[in-house]
Amino acid sequence: MAEPLSYKTIQWVGGLDGRVEMIDQTLLPRDIKVLAVEDVETLWEAIKNLRVRGAPAIGVAAAMGVVLGVRRVSDPERFFAELDRVYDYLAGSRPTAVNLFWALDRMRRRAQALRERPMAGIKEALLTEAKVIRDEDATVCRAIGDAGLPLIRDGMAILTHCNAGALAASEYGTALAPLYRAHEHGRRFKVWADETRPLLQGARLTAWELAAAGIEVTVICDNMAGRLMKDGRVDLIITGADRIAANGDTANKIGTYSLAVLAKAHGVPFYVAAPRSTFDFSLPDGSAIPIEQRSPDEIRRGFGCLTVPDEAGVYNPAFDVTPAELICGLITERGMIEPVDTRHIRDLLSDHPSSG
Amino acid sequence: MAEPLSYKTIQWVGGLDGRVEMIDQTLLPRDIKVLAVEDVETLWEAIKNLRVRGAPAIGVAAAMGVVLGVRRVSDPERFFAELDRVYDYLAGSRPTAVNLFWALDRMRRRAQALRERPMAGIKEALLTEAKVIRDEDATVCRAIGDAGLPLIRDGMAILTHCNAGALAASEYGTALAPLYRAHEHGRRFKVWADETRPLLQGARLTAWELAAAGIEVTVICDNMAGRLMKDGRVDLIITGADRIAANGDTANKIGTYSLAVLAKAHGVPFYVAAPRSTFDFSLPDGSAIPIEQRSPDEIRRGFGCLTVPDEAGVYNPAFDVTPAELICGLITERGMIEPVDTRHIRDLLSDHPSSG
Repeated sequence: MAEPLSYKTIQWVGGLDGRVEMIDQTLLPRDIKVLAVEDVETLWEAIKNLRVRGAPAIGVAAAMGVVLGVRRVSDPERFFAELDRVYDYLAGSRPTAVNLFWALDRMRRRAQALRERPMAGIKEALLTEAKVIRDEDATVCRAIGDAGLPLIRDGMAILTHCNAGALAASEYGTALAPLYRAHEHGRRFKVWADETRPLLQGARLTAWELAAAGIEVTVICDNMAGRLMKDGRVDLIITGADRIAANGDTANKIGTYSLAVLAKAHGVPFYVAAPRSTFDFSLPDGSAIPIEQRSPDEIRRGFGCLTVPDEAGVYNPAFDVTPAELICGLITERGMIEPVDTRHIRDLLSDHPSSG
Repeated sequence: MAEPLSYKTIQWVGGLDGRVEMIDQTLLPRDIKVLAVEDVETLWEAIKNLRVRGAPAIGVAAAMGVVLGVRRVSDPERFFAELDRVYDYLAGSRPTAVNLFWALDRMRRRAQALRERPMAGIKEALLTEAKVIRDEDATVCRAIGDAGLPLIRDGMAILTHCNAGALAASEYGTALAPLYRAHEHGRRFKVWADETRPLLQGARLTAWELAAAGIEVTVICDNMAGRLMKDGRVDLIITGADRIAANGDTANKIGTYSLAVLAKAHGVPFYVAAPRSTFDFSLPDGSAIPIEQRSPDEIRRGFGCLTVPDEAGVYNPAFDVTPAELICGLITERGMIEPVDTRHIRDLLSDHPSSG
């Protein structure tokens, strides 16, 4: 089975005059609605408001957004200036996931390499590059699944946070890829999904896609994970990542850090799964990773109801940073990095310094 | 100032033919609606569905519920049988908070002590006893506030979980009592309120009552507390308790255990505030404390929206147990118990073995 699910998180449909199609993830699990996106402004809004989310999927979306942003430029003199404008515009949508910048850089490099070609050819090449980024992501996710497969044993209970599955990437996802591969191998296990406040990506997305794939999943509130560990009911934790520094410090959805501390206190192995495009070798450690602050209303009136009085403040960081020493291993498309430190990361991943 | 807030969480209004009035806490912070309760079935429903909640307030409600349940019994032969029936009925409303059983026991003992008196006198005595339980609770909460007052210093950031304030008890509350007393003393500090999934008592209730009292409060999702500790932004944690075993193991709102582990990992002092009526000396440790499992729909469709797909499971324990060794001190109306162990608890609290 090439894909665990029958939907496409994000894809390009048609030729250069075609469109991006994506599931609107803000409506799951109630409604499965496919958004057709034909302009870069709509795509920017979709990234900003998490209609498409998850570091790898944001990268794919940004690459396709570059195509949407430049495909109608008719003046060859303006093409590269417009490309830069679209780059900056999309780069401002969400600050933490480095895959966004990685994909934008890759698209711009591709255009610059073809600078002397006719504009129509550059546009076609950019569309091809965006599709390649999407297809490579699917291949990479499958490889991550195979690298993490040995961790998944019969009878295990595996806990995950937020959504780093098929909805966050292409096909297998990252943190969930080893689970999908183990499921294909007939291994039996169960999953605890942290609901993941404030936007409930675990409850709405991870539970939905695992259940759709026939994997047993139980949703808990984030504050229940520690007690489950204490009771011996969690054998393994795998999360995704939004940006990993050169030393392995990992930014991921808020709450990941607490999980990692609790995992260490209870002797539960804690792993992070991510493609090489999530690594930011320009940062020696996690202290300089920008942390996106999101609207207080996500907490104050997240479901249409007022749940925090207007007189009280709200603090809403979207991510936190987990120090490398709390991470047992990094599961990448090139294999497992274990232990997690600058040298082991560099040894496995550093043969493409130009994309660092 | 005798009371930090202008409302009454729960009170008896009028004489024996009067009624219980309580704020319907399920509607806060949107609506401040006072429920008038005139029969024991409505009171049972109010406890079960958390219209009134918090261990001390549940005790007060149960005592008043006994009065509602027996005040119209006209046959003296049936009075004590009916009292037993009302006892069992109310005892079945919520299993974890021991104050419920403590208050019911106290009411039944009072009636039995007056067994030979005319029935009208017994009923009046029960009403008086229920009012005394309420008034004693207010006195006790103030004493808890004074016992915890030395912990609160200028410039501190104090984190609390769920609601153990004026809405959970009479007047000052338990965990929030030291904060209200410190505020009255002019000390300046800020409070982080865990929103406390699934029912958001921290967001809806703690934030509401602290803001109403003029104390600076900021709401966070439960999964953000660990990162705040790591960043040195939490100086002290105080929570309430629903039942404390003889050795100090403490059942409290789900998530308290994780907080205590995170506090230890970051060197943040972790305290529990509770009246003596929350101690259950019949249990040597916390392993036998019954943990209430609540409806999956609190998580699955807690805000009217479906947030967990029907195909996924949900696990919803209302409480967890924090081991005594993670608790720096127990703040009681008789003073601080520190360190927390069977001997120190017994030394301070055991002079009324009959109520144990």
